[in-house]
Amino acid sequence: MAEVRSPSVFPADSVGLVQTQYASLFSEERPLTFQSGAQLTSVDVAYETYGRLNDRRDNAVFICHALTGDAHAAGRHHEDDDKPGWWDGLIGPGKALDTSQYFVICANVLGGCQGTTGPGSVDPQTGERFCLDFPFLTVADIVQVHAELVKHLGIDRLLAIVGGSLGGMQVLEWAVRFPDQVRAAVCLASAPKLAAQGIAFNAVGRRAIYADQGFGNGRYYDKDGPRYGLALARMVAHITYLSEDSIELKFGRRLQDQGGFAFEMQKETEFQIESYLHYQGKRFVQRFDANSYLYLTRAMDYFDLSGDDRTLSEAVRDVQARFLVASYDTDWLFPTSQSRELTSALLQEGKHVTFVELECPYGHDSFLIDLGPLTSLISPFLEQTLQAARA
Amino acid sequence: MAEVRSPSVFPADSVGLVQTQYASLFSEERPLTFQSGAQLTSVDVAYETYGRLNDRRDNAVFICHALTGDAHAAGRHHEDDDKPGWWDGLIGPGKALDTSQYFVICANVLGGCQGTTGPGSVDPQTGERFCLDFPFLTVADIVQVHAELVKHLGIDRLLAIVGGSLGGMQVLEWAVRFPDQVRAAVCLASAPKLAAQGIAFNAVGRRAIYADQGFGNGRYYDKDGPRYGLALARMVAHITYLSEDSIELKFGRRLQDQGGFAFEMQKETEFQIESYLHYQGKRFVQRFDANSYLYLTRAMDYFDLSGDDRTLSEAVRDVQARFLVASYDTDWLFPTSQSRELTSALLQEGKHVTFVELECPYGHDSFLIDLGPLTSLISPFLEQTLQAARA
Repeated sequence: MAEVRSPSVFPADSVGLVQTQYASLFSEERPLTFQSGAQLTSVDVAYETYGRLNDRRDNAVFICHALTGDAHAAGRHHEDDDKPGWWDGLIGPGKALDTSQYFVICANVLGGCQGTTGPGSVDPQTGERFCLDFPFLTVADIVQVHAELVKHLGIDRLLAIVGGSLGGMQVLEWAVRFPDQVRAAVCLASAPKLAAQGIAFNAVGRRAIYADQGFGNGRYYDKDGPRYGLALARMVAHITYLSEDSIELKFGRRLQDQGGFAFEMQKETEFQIESYLHYQGKRFVQRFDANSYLYLTRAMDYFDLSGDDRTLSEAVRDVQARFLVASYDTDWLFPTSQSRELTSALLQEGKHVTFVELECPYGHDSFLIDLGPLTSLISPFLEQTLQAARA
Repeated sequence: MAEVRSPSVFPADSVGLVQTQYASLFSEERPLTFQSGAQLTSVDVAYETYGRLNDRRDNAVFICHALTGDAHAAGRHHEDDDKPGWWDGLIGPGKALDTSQYFVICANVLGGCQGTTGPGSVDPQTGERFCLDFPFLTVADIVQVHAELVKHLGIDRLLAIVGGSLGGMQVLEWAVRFPDQVRAAVCLASAPKLAAQGIAFNAVGRRAIYADQGFGNGRYYDKDGPRYGLALARMVAHITYLSEDSIELKFGRRLQDQGGFAFEMQKETEFQIESYLHYQGKRFVQRFDANSYLYLTRAMDYFDLSGDDRTLSEAVRDVQARFLVASYDTDWLFPTSQSRELTSALLQEGKHVTFVELECPYGHDSFLIDLGPLTSLISPFLEQTLQAARA
């Protein structure tokens, strides 16, 4: 018989039991207009909140999740939940995003597959799933929906917007698009645009999905779907999330079978690193939708804070938020040089910006793993922002 | 009407018209025994030679090709041939591998698909193609077959063995396995073993082939075969052959269509880098066999000059060859650190070794592209080796 635990078994710095909530935003009269010009008259958004919005409504922090994240950033969904939210180490009483002080919000992105309207949702116009008829979306569209949610929650101005990777791109978009709605921006392991190598890896992942016979042009929801393709996309992406050193350290050339080489072409997972990647691929297919993967990687590719018609400095000219920018020395997907470029542009425009390159062996994924250094950066940064706001 | 050109249209430093030749090696009495213990009683080897073997038979240089190379390293196959051999810039009268001095040999590897016996060959025992019943092969097996070819050509000792990448691994294996048959070894953009990240990328490529419905467990020769999987494998591998800077420089975020973003999920190749990778994938499928790709990437994964039971220094203890080791500063698949490790081991054992890290923006592929610096290294190195041999 399973042990019955009361909520008190959660550690004191946990937000405890949480529930995903849903908001229905936009309407026939006020539809969501995408950057492409397409419109949706209704968008459901899955979100969670931790802590309490204070009476001044000045303590709200919005978390932007990365490519395959979701609204469940902290706490547990039920008492026997084995796994807490994806940034649980950073969110809770006394933690970097201190829920005894701040009202923390995290929402699934537009186009996602964890509760917010996306390609797998039913199109009310047709009664069928959107599939690839879902409007093409950009980081600007994602942020527009989240800004609407924040307004819906009765918040005019966020204390801070925080995110890493694709979440960091959303942070940048927020600060530039809604300068008077954001007091502080924390941009981690990210960049004002994806480098060509990143686009190349995304292209390989999408190709794997498109080429899978189970894809059926995106209309696979009553079938198995492009399981192999999606798993493959995850495998190649996963390599880019790790540093070469961390792969070497964790797996090296160690074999699955202690007995030595199999000398057998049918054996696909001989080295531990292979087995690990296959496992990551399989696990991913259980929790993620291939169409969402196509849409969101494209949003990542498209994102370019400056673009062809303005420099990065021009792009950040109207920013009001104080910035905290952090990169990781072993991150080769979003190298430090890109964070430096962002920092220079902000400084050039006279903005308040703190930049740190953190040393951490885990590559791009460091912002999800190595939370100690992040805590010592984010804690005082938010504290100061709140003090300045109230001064 | 096509212009008729005489051989004299070839530049003076070209080896001119060449023909691939074939040798049938091993026999019932003296079969090829693989490292795995498997045996083949007959192995065909496709090879080409450039220049003349002198009477002393001391001027032979053997070229080891990389993963997807072939025997056609220099010259042209017919007068209207658009493309010369893959290392034509390095092989010819007056070039680094000076065919007025040296007798240059290049042969397709065991398990390949360009004329040498491999999984696509017919098994004389069954009258059907081997497919995945072809024996599992290693770099040691490849070298054993090439050593047999060299003997077959009447050569007891090579002046030099030269190769890059997987070819460099063969160079190392030659120098260690047949120390008295190699006077000099030129090991370019290679390593005594593949790092875990390299294994990871190979694993993704193989997964793409295995997962393709056209693969049919390797028995696809009367059908289309795993075209999508093989193309995908090439796409991901191709990214690892280029440096991040060279991708950025060559493609950046430039679009295929000057008109701007398509905002269209059906459009798979929007950025130039995507279109380029798709093209590389498609072109590769026309010239390479998926089963060979599986076997040869596995050989690359398995290669470990030292292994569990000896250090790298111990592995090179009996080497007699003088070494030239070169790495490239932008090569992240075979980073300089691995060439340094090799060089240290050779020095520790008192071997003659020259090591250079070359600066070149093209990443791992530099050894196929930037031939000027290679020429100024290899030319004097071979010259000295020949002088020392005759002293």
